[in-house]
Amino acid sequence: MQIKPPYLLFIGDATDKLSIKMAQSLADWRAELCVGELSVNGCTVSTGLNQCSICEAAKLGAKTFVLGFANSGGVLDKKWLPIISEAIENGMNIVSGLHDKLTNFDELVSLSQKHNTNLLDIRHPSTAFATGKGYKRKGKRLLTVGTDCSVGKMYTSLSLEKAMKEQNIDVDFRATGQCGILISGSGVAIDCVIADFISGAAESLSPDAEETHWDIIEGQGSLSHPAFAGVSLGLLHGSQPDALVICHALNRTHMRGLLHTSFPSIETTIELNIAAAKLTNPDVQVVGISVNTSSVSIEQGNEICERLSQTFGVPCVDPLRDGVDSIVANLC
Amino acid sequence: MQIKPPYLLFIGDATDKLSIKMAQSLADWRAELCVGELSVNGCTVSTGLNQCSICEAAKLGAKTFVLGFANSGGVLDKKWLPIISEAIENGMNIVSGLHDKLTNFDELVSLSQKHNTNLLDIRHPSTAFATGKGYKRKGKRLLTVGTDCSVGKMYTSLSLEKAMKEQNIDVDFRATGQCGILISGSGVAIDCVIADFISGAAESLSPDAEETHWDIIEGQGSLSHPAFAGVSLGLLHGSQPDALVICHALNRTHMRGLLHTSFPSIETTIELNIAAAKLTNPDVQVVGISVNTSSVSIEQGNEICERLSQTFGVPCVDPLRDGVDSIVANLC
Repeated sequence: MQIKPPYLLFIGDATDKLSIKMAQSLADWRAELCVGELSVNGCTVSTGLNQCSICEAAKLGAKTFVLGFANSGGVLDKKWLPIISEAIENGMNIVSGLHDKLTNFDELVSLSQKHNTNLLDIRHPSTAFATGKGYKRKGKRLLTVGTDCSVGKMYTSLSLEKAMKEQNIDVDFRATGQCGILISGSGVAIDCVIADFISGAAESLSPDAEETHWDIIEGQGSLSHPAFAGVSLGLLHGSQPDALVICHALNRTHMRGLLHTSFPSIETTIELNIAAAKLTNPDVQVVGISVNTSSVSIEQGNEICERLSQTFGVPCVDPLRDGVDSIVANLC
Repeated sequence: MQIKPPYLLFIGDATDKLSIKMAQSLADWRAELCVGELSVNGCTVSTGLNQCSICEAAKLGAKTFVLGFANSGGVLDKKWLPIISEAIENGMNIVSGLHDKLTNFDELVSLSQKHNTNLLDIRHPSTAFATGKGYKRKGKRLLTVGTDCSVGKMYTSLSLEKAMKEQNIDVDFRATGQCGILISGSGVAIDCVIADFISGAAESLSPDAEETHWDIIEGQGSLSHPAFAGVSLGLLHGSQPDALVICHALNRTHMRGLLHTSFPSIETTIELNIAAAKLTNPDVQVVGISVNTSSVSIEQGNEICERLSQTFGVPCVDPLRDGVDSIVANLC
């Protein structure tokens, strides 16, 4: 699957910053590949990139129109079909990370055939996987796990990869979600795999490697999330991580999307993940904590990270404010 | 999906009793709907039903040819296509519980069209599910959970349903695997659902009901199985069980299919399941233990069950030797 830059990021009428994380993550990690963003009336959020119409984007050479929003069910609202069609008519490929497949919409299929463009459903694995085997593989693996969905597991993973590359460590980022796949160009959308093959797919994602090689595996969901814990557990078992980084966002009161639920503590999150991870790697350890402190001041954020570091005896950072060097130093 | 009896049970060249559980469970629970079994050279196991050729079965009025074997990957070996074709030519529908779809084999599709028969891939959910919500639903739910795959979760569930019906309790068996679906005529093959929707599918399987109604939900896999724990966890969260029955088979030394793994204790199994189940039902309780004692004498089996019952403070039975009345008595 080839995803051709540059990209135009479409964020629709989003009003929730978390819902445009696909667009935001591209803007944050691959801004040089984006010509701008497109939103419509009612949208109250932005990636920070310039507004850009489809026509302008085409003039700037945009090759791919990215559906940059997501929702829990992954449904493609039919109201977007005219806009997607306009992008196709301007010669762009369409990339979607939604559960709903672009290729299930006949009008998009025929239009893209007419204009010789591609419909890329990056969330839908095109590979057949084996069931998990649980055999120990060579090489080192780090998995980011979280107190909840959307707490910074991908950002933490990408930050770790970047910092480790800067230190000439042999490392690969392994994407497990549509944003990560878009950023890195490969991976498996683990939540779209058939349930029987979750851990098998995770095993294939970080294959046997040199003893000194690190795979930094992007975590998904949370063992405490009533909807997605099964995905998190299969990914954890299949990844057989040597190292876990616990990801957390401040000031959440309930699990993402579920107002009636309570939020797990970092302590509970560590206990649950270590207990489960030992099934396929008895030597697993927590090597760091990563906190999204954007909802508090820098001083408050520093204070909180320092307290957590003391409580749990591992480095604690906000990757975007502090970098992740202290976690990398704790790895080897 | 309508599955028409009577059935001819095809067990191929199976040499492992566990691998023909689809055929065996039909023979055990719906023998009156089966005309016999068909095996080929090399087969060393049997359901106990009479051998019956396709031709004989057709004369006996068989309407459906059941692929009665399974394997971990769920692959359909092409060597069976001639036999399946013969069944179609004799006017039978084909039922498969394998991951590989019958409908992906063009020769079977065209042959079944020609003979006006159906190809039924009962493992493949035909419904679209929502993601899990975790809201408390009305009615009572019991889930069977296990130390491993294939330790008797379905048999225990069906035994409970039967015993409860005999006591005029308002109860439904909820099938989550291909065997259960074949026996009961409905259900969701939970391990074939897209990973994101495991718990959502489980929620839909035992909807809101009368306060006195019981759903007996067939468990899948094991929280200690490196390949399938994700499925087990999603099913557990979505089922929000009030009651758990722990299922166990004696004299296993490793997890099914994985020689290098160790087997969890009943104590560990209880701890893992109770801890996880509390996320969606804080009042969950273990109400019984069900042990497959077929590998030891009746006396030894009784002794083991009694010891387990004392250790864990709940009734412990072999459903096929002892019935499950003591567990039902512990329910209300």
